[in-house]
Amino acid sequence: MQSGEKPAAAAEVRVLGSWASPFVMRVMVALRLKGVEYELLQETMGKKSELLLASNPVHKKIPVLLHRGKPISESLVIVQYVDEVWPPPASILPRDDPYAAAIHRFWGQYIDDMVSTLASMQFPPRIRILRGTVPGDKDEASDEMTTALLYLEEAFVECSKGKQYFGDDSIGYLDIALGSHLGWIRAVERIAGVELLGGAKVPNLAAWADRFCGHPAVVDVMPDVDILVEFTAKLI
Amino acid sequence: MQSGEKPAAAAEVRVLGSWASPFVMRVMVALRLKGVEYELLQETMGKKSELLLASNPVHKKIPVLLHRGKPISESLVIVQYVDEVWPPPASILPRDDPYAAAIHRFWGQYIDDMVSTLASMQFPPRIRILRGTVPGDKDEASDEMTTALLYLEEAFVECSKGKQYFGDDSIGYLDIALGSHLGWIRAVERIAGVELLGGAKVPNLAAWADRFCGHPAVVDVMPDVDILVEFTAKLI
Repeated sequence: MQSGEKPAAAAEVRVLGSWASPFVMRVMVALRLKGVEYELLQETMGKKSELLLASNPVHKKIPVLLHRGKPISESLVIVQYVDEVWPPPASILPRDDPYAAAIHRFWGQYIDDMVSTLASMQFPPRIRILRGTVPGDKDEASDEMTTALLYLEEAFVECSKGKQYFGDDSIGYLDIALGSHLGWIRAVERIAGVELLGGAKVPNLAAWADRFCGHPAVVDVMPDVDILVEFTAKLI
Repeated sequence: MQSGEKPAAAAEVRVLGSWASPFVMRVMVALRLKGVEYELLQETMGKKSELLLASNPVHKKIPVLLHRGKPISESLVIVQYVDEVWPPPASILPRDDPYAAAIHRFWGQYIDDMVSTLASMQFPPRIRILRGTVPGDKDEASDEMTTALLYLEEAFVECSKGKQYFGDDSIGYLDIALGSHLGWIRAVERIAGVELLGGAKVPNLAAWADRFCGHPAVVDVMPDVDILVEFTAKLI
């Protein structure tokens, strides 16, 4: 970067993260929706930078948003912060509709609770069960996720009101909360040979997933499924 | 109630809950802060009413707020809804200060994560360990909570800015999130003979706890510690 070329903008908003983390992706998509420039500082897996330890001393986890040096942690807290700091027209939580906002927050929390199931699938034990390479109840592991996705299919119908996204005509809070996991969900489908979004059980969600992944605010930060599969293969 | 005596107000806002639940208490304190009249519909422990099952089909848990018949679930989601629907002057999340709001939400989430530790203390196994009546690491069980309270002591200093509450001069989101657990924290101290708030480790938090419990929006809905101790005695 040449001296004088937007140095303030680059330093103003920084994200401590990693390309493979769905939680970091939430933050990047929110910033992109708002048209905010940011700098992604990649954390190395298995190490924690001094900046991360200083910025999130409680959890020591990514993502952290540094806005003018002030740290904010927890992905959905950051998404709400981004929504409140940077003005419309791009609105993430439904505006002037507290009930719709509450429904989005409810399902956002549900996704985070259920995500412990989905995200833990990244890790060897669960994937080995799903692949059938170690003993364990494959159906149970798969059913938990299917149940969650069936609930989210219903939530999509309720929130989107027949439009494109959970956020109606545009990407909103719940699109970001769930959409950030799509790369991993698809990777798990491929690795474990299970149908999650791919089956016929959640047709609205499956069509939404394709739209979400192709959205201009998403396409450049959605990790490639092939690379996630390769990344995971090293672990299992 | 005589016919014609505020029937609309009573029916407009209903809370499905229980007197002993800290999560239900959050909702009641938020409504009281806003001066909103509500009707508490007590759920019976071990049973779930048809209204609860219909209102929160996903989790089937209290609290549920019914506002003009529309259900909202998850205690901190409800608190934010109440804050957005009923206008200031009573403000729960810091207004016009997204950073302060993010800090409140961060710690609110921390409390909910840590609450699984505190709230599970209600239940026999953990309390038996703390009382030393069954084998288990008493120090470890106690240390987890002490660590959490030490973090929250720091958070109090940061958020209150030398004033009375996490919410500065008035009760806010984080006061509600943590304060609703005070009855149970004190009951556990007494039952298990451990010092949590009672010790000298968290002096600011201990003083805040007394203020919170005496606040007009809290005093009538904070469960009596003696009754909680008696209630728990039946279980252990």
